[in-house]
Amino acid sequence: MTTSTDKNQDIYKLRGLIKDIESGMLTTIDEHGSLHSRPMAQSTEIQSDGTLWFFTNASSHKVFEIEHRQQVNVSFTSPNQQRYISISGIAELVKDRNKMQELWKPELQAWFSQGLDEPDIALLKVKINRADYWDSHSSFEAQSISL
Amino acid sequence: MTTSTDKNQDIYKLRGLIKDIESGMLTTIDEHGSLHSRPMAQSTEIQSDGTLWFFTNASSHKVFEIEHRQQVNVSFTSPNQQRYISISGIAELVKDRNKMQELWKPELQAWFSQGLDEPDIALLKVKINRADYWDSHSSFEAQSISL
Repeated sequence: MTTSTDKNQDIYKLRGLIKDIESGMLTTIDEHGSLHSRPMAQSTEIQSDGTLWFFTNASSHKVFEIEHRQQVNVSFTSPNQQRYISISGIAELVKDRNKMQELWKPELQAWFSQGLDEPDIALLKVKINRADYWDSHSSFEAQSISL
Repeated sequence: MTTSTDKNQDIYKLRGLIKDIESGMLTTIDEHGSLHSRPMAQSTEIQSDGTLWFFTNASSHKVFEIEHRQQVNVSFTSPNQQRYISISGIAELVKDRNKMQELWKPELQAWFSQGLDEPDIALLKVKINRADYWDSHSSFEAQSISL
């Protein structure tokens, strides 16, 4: 059984692993079963409820894909540290202005030039189910976290 | 229509994009529909027939997953260069000793300590169908290559 203390520790661990990695690669499945990935800038650290949040355009193809198949992967890699993280989760589109204001940070302007005034801007919420990670400290043996 | 010259140019372009990136993240779909990824060290540059090759353990879970669902994604990221590449393809297990000898390189010893004497060693061949990439030169607009 996973207690809430274990869960907090797991989230803390996972936060530390990805915090210095600016962007992850979000992989989704298209309508033909093909797998595609694209970079997504981290908007915030992993929330205490085990969710990851990204800004997106609501009418982008990945959102269409997620509405059909919610299962996604987000990978984070830090080649300099030889650190690799795989996050498996369930994605959903969230159009909540308050949440957007809470999560917005100026670095995201590179992707959304008009900031929160972009007409199509929305959030992608990924509920983390499992994470696996490899790094030089663990001799590249996979370590797993289930949330 | 894609001519063979176009295809050669596309492969040349893609090779250049990933050649300095030591490892990619291979994403597969498990028996429950969850998406998992793990780092895979590049064994060689993209071959002229549009295939990518990785060494693997034949009895690993990812091979089991691939035997059920051949569609995979391999992503390569180079945060320093702000370069992100998504490769969509079809994976298959190949147990060909000659091909293994052709592709082996000493850097792979970090993952396969006994080298080609590992009892379970095999190859994963990924036939590339499509690649998308983003970098600071293209102002993060996605560029696509279909092979």
